[in-house]
Amino acid sequence: MRSILSPKILGEFLGTCFLVMVVIGSGIMASKLSDDELTVLLANTIATGAGLTALIWVFISISGAHFNPAVTLVMFMKNEIQVLLMLLFIGAQISGGLLGVLLAHAMFGLDVFQISENYRGDIHTYLAEFIATFGLLMVILGVRQFSIFAVAPAVGLYISAGYWFTSSTSFANPAVTIARAFTDTFTGIDPEFVGPFLVAQFSGAVVASLIMGKIQSETSQ
Amino acid sequence: MRSILSPKILGEFLGTCFLVMVVIGSGIMASKLSDDELTVLLANTIATGAGLTALIWVFISISGAHFNPAVTLVMFMKNEIQVLLMLLFIGAQISGGLLGVLLAHAMFGLDVFQISENYRGDIHTYLAEFIATFGLLMVILGVRQFSIFAVAPAVGLYISAGYWFTSSTSFANPAVTIARAFTDTFTGIDPEFVGPFLVAQFSGAVVASLIMGKIQSETSQ
Amino acid sequence: MRSILSPKILGEFLGTCFLVMVVIGSGIMASKLSDDELTVLLANTIATGAGLTALIWVFISISGAHFNPAVTLVMFMKNEIQVLLMLLFIGAQISGGLLGVLLAHAMFGLDVFQISENYRGDIHTYLAEFIATFGLLMVILGVRQFSIFAVAPAVGLYISAGYWFTSSTSFANPAVTIARAFTDTFTGIDPEFVGPFLVAQFSGAVVASLIMGKIQSETSQ
Amino acid sequence: MRSILSPKILGEFLGTCFLVMVVIGSGIMASKLSDDELTVLLANTIATGAGLTALIWVFISISGAHFNPAVTLVMFMKNEIQVLLMLLFIGAQISGGLLGVLLAHAMFGLDVFQISENYRGDIHTYLAEFIATFGLLMVILGVRQFSIFAVAPAVGLYISAGYWFTSSTSFANPAVTIARAFTDTFTGIDPEFVGPFLVAQFSGAVVASLIMGKIQSETSQ
Repeated sequence: MRSILSPKILGEFLGTCFLVMVVIGSGIMASKLSDDELTVLLANTIATGAGLTALIWVFISISGAHFNPAVTLVMFMKNEIQVLLMLLFIGAQISGGLLGVLLAHAMFGLDVFQISENYRGDIHTYLAEFIATFGLLMVILGVRQFSIFAVAPAVGLYISAGYWFTSSTSFANPAVTIARAFTDTFTGIDPEFVGPFLVAQFSGAVVASLIMGKIQSETSQ
Repeated sequence: MRSILSPKILGEFLGTCFLVMVVIGSGIMASKLSDDELTVLLANTIATGAGLTALIWVFISISGAHFNPAVTLVMFMKNEIQVLLMLLFIGAQISGGLLGVLLAHAMFGLDVFQISENYRGDIHTYLAEFIATFGLLMVILGVRQFSIFAVAPAVGLYISAGYWFTSSTSFANPAVTIARAFTDTFTGIDPEFVGPFLVAQFSGAVVASLIMGKIQSETSQ
Repeated sequence: MRSILSPKILGEFLGTCFLVMVVIGSGIMASKLSDDELTVLLANTIATGAGLTALIWVFISISGAHFNPAVTLVMFMKNEIQVLLMLLFIGAQISGGLLGVLLAHAMFGLDVFQISENYRGDIHTYLAEFIATFGLLMVILGVRQFSIFAVAPAVGLYISAGYWFTSSTSFANPAVTIARAFTDTFTGIDPEFVGPFLVAQFSGAVVASLIMGKIQSETSQ
Repeated sequence: MRSILSPKILGEFLGTCFLVMVVIGSGIMASKLSDDELTVLLANTIATGAGLTALIWVFISISGAHFNPAVTLVMFMKNEIQVLLMLLFIGAQISGGLLGVLLAHAMFGLDVFQISENYRGDIHTYLAEFIATFGLLMVILGVRQFSIFAVAPAVGLYISAGYWFTSSTSFANPAVTIARAFTDTFTGIDPEFVGPFLVAQFSGAVVASLIMGKIQSETSQ
């Protein structure tokens, strides 16, 4: 019980909750104000990059600020956290994400419970998620060797780029993907496509971890 | 008398004055140039996030750069400032904000004295203000433990996100809210709704302080 | 002769040349691509804030990265540079700015020599320039006490905000103002209004220096 | 063989691959969502500046994060890398860039092999590339003397400005220019103009290196 309410777990819960509110809420606000798809995505990008950077700076010295089961899995593979903590983190991330989607809907006076019908089922979209999550782990593992301070802006900036250079807009996060299945707004994803997204995300993360591990072990020799 | 003109009080006065000029002035400029609501809010966001970051870096080592009675109240609750200084800070913030709205109007050649008629009275908007101010204190209290340098960009980025992910556009500041009652332009708020906004803001700040206090006391054990 | 070609003078010359290319060139590019005034100013803002930050980081350890006679005058008043260097700096800033406007025109295939016809003659615009330059010096003098590293992003962010919260779009720089008289494009200013702009800018800078001097001397006691 | 697979070479390969995906992919996404040229270039700018900053922070302590043959040539001229490593870097940058264009096309479900037909042949565009690359090297060589940490955001911000203040949108990178010949989308360049672009880029880089070398040798005396 104590560990469930530990600062680390609470940090992952609160951080992922706010991250999902930012992603989904900003999509709702922007599509309320315009139907020009480019400027809607631009607003969504700026809010997400900005919010993500701030949230990582808040929680990085508390929980490591993963907010993302793919990141947590890689930290487990690198023996930085144990299996129990990994499972608690992932549970906190998913439940925090689900609370985030409810609160985003409530703040905008929408039905709190929704199911997305957004089509995101093209094969090349799955490739995009693989590359997006590969890149996310490449950024986290590379930048933290150089500067812990820079991890927050690097991740915020990388995801800002990812909204545009990947055809999937870089979900790159299984907990956020699951949460986004529960909103039928701009940033939603039909639950049918969540499975392939998660496979692509975890694969991209694991491959990036292996490659960066090789690069970094040789660099430090 | 000396304390009223102390650097700290002057810092809070000047900082809040500029913050309000940025928020209100950029709303006036943007709505003069376009009536596309999304791009108007985008310009308002970029100006506010940018200006707020710069202002916090200016005054953080002078007054702590609160510019916000909800932040000042939390610092009083945490015994970081005394009751007299709290009251002087809040007075400086409110009067600085009022000067800011007058100067913003004067710079654009508008009537300097105005009263807003912007409707902001939905219950879910009050929830948004609670969450917005909760998040603001979460960011300030979390980030300053990690890096004083990062507080300025973290707050600027968080408020940039807040303009989009909360339905209220994250006023999150009682002094700025009062000032915004005195402008009948893009960023105004009809005085009728100021009371509920202030209740929501102070509540969000106090709850965030309690939760972050719990997280941080356990982390530092 | 040696001092005219010293690294400091060359730094002020090159930095102001690039700053003016960024301000004027981005205005030309943006107004070529759209006639939506808001998005043109947004592009001009992003380019200027970004370019200014990068240029200050380049030259801050070489010349102090003033690029601005109002800043140089304040540094002279604070006994940080001598009268001869002040004059050389201002000469380098003005001539660098003039080269910048020629190169900006050349890069876009326009007549290199132009005179602006942009009306910028309202009294409230002069108030805006006073406030804009007051704020610029407040930012420089305040932030450098806290962190030399932060001066570049703080100034870049402050000017980004200034493009929106002041009705003049914050020229806030006599050398750039003079250069902008020589372009009849988006960012130009009819030479008729240069005089009042310069008076407002130097006044704002001097008043800010006096007030910040008072705040900072008491803080450091 | 060992050196081809060394961390440095892999870093240049991966970094340039991601950089090209960001530049080209974001141009494809943006022009899919709108045909307003200004907002398309704005999205392209934000993605590129953000992605470039993150990528430099990832690889700066591994390979120096050149991602650019003009930068690598200058580092060779300054005796910071040897001729063999220079050639391996340039090979890695060009091949990484080519992989990036293929992957960008694949992620958006486009033909992976394309040839650009974008006209970029005006003489003033070549002047723009000279100035853009001169400025890029000025930024890199100037900022790294002040702070290695700041190189990444300085370069990201400089290129963001460059998209707007130069008529060529600041390719400023021979490897990226070659890659962009192989995409017939927003960011492409007809192969006919690649030669003059490369001449302008290498010339700008070399001239900047000579001038900055002079400024910096005198500063450090």
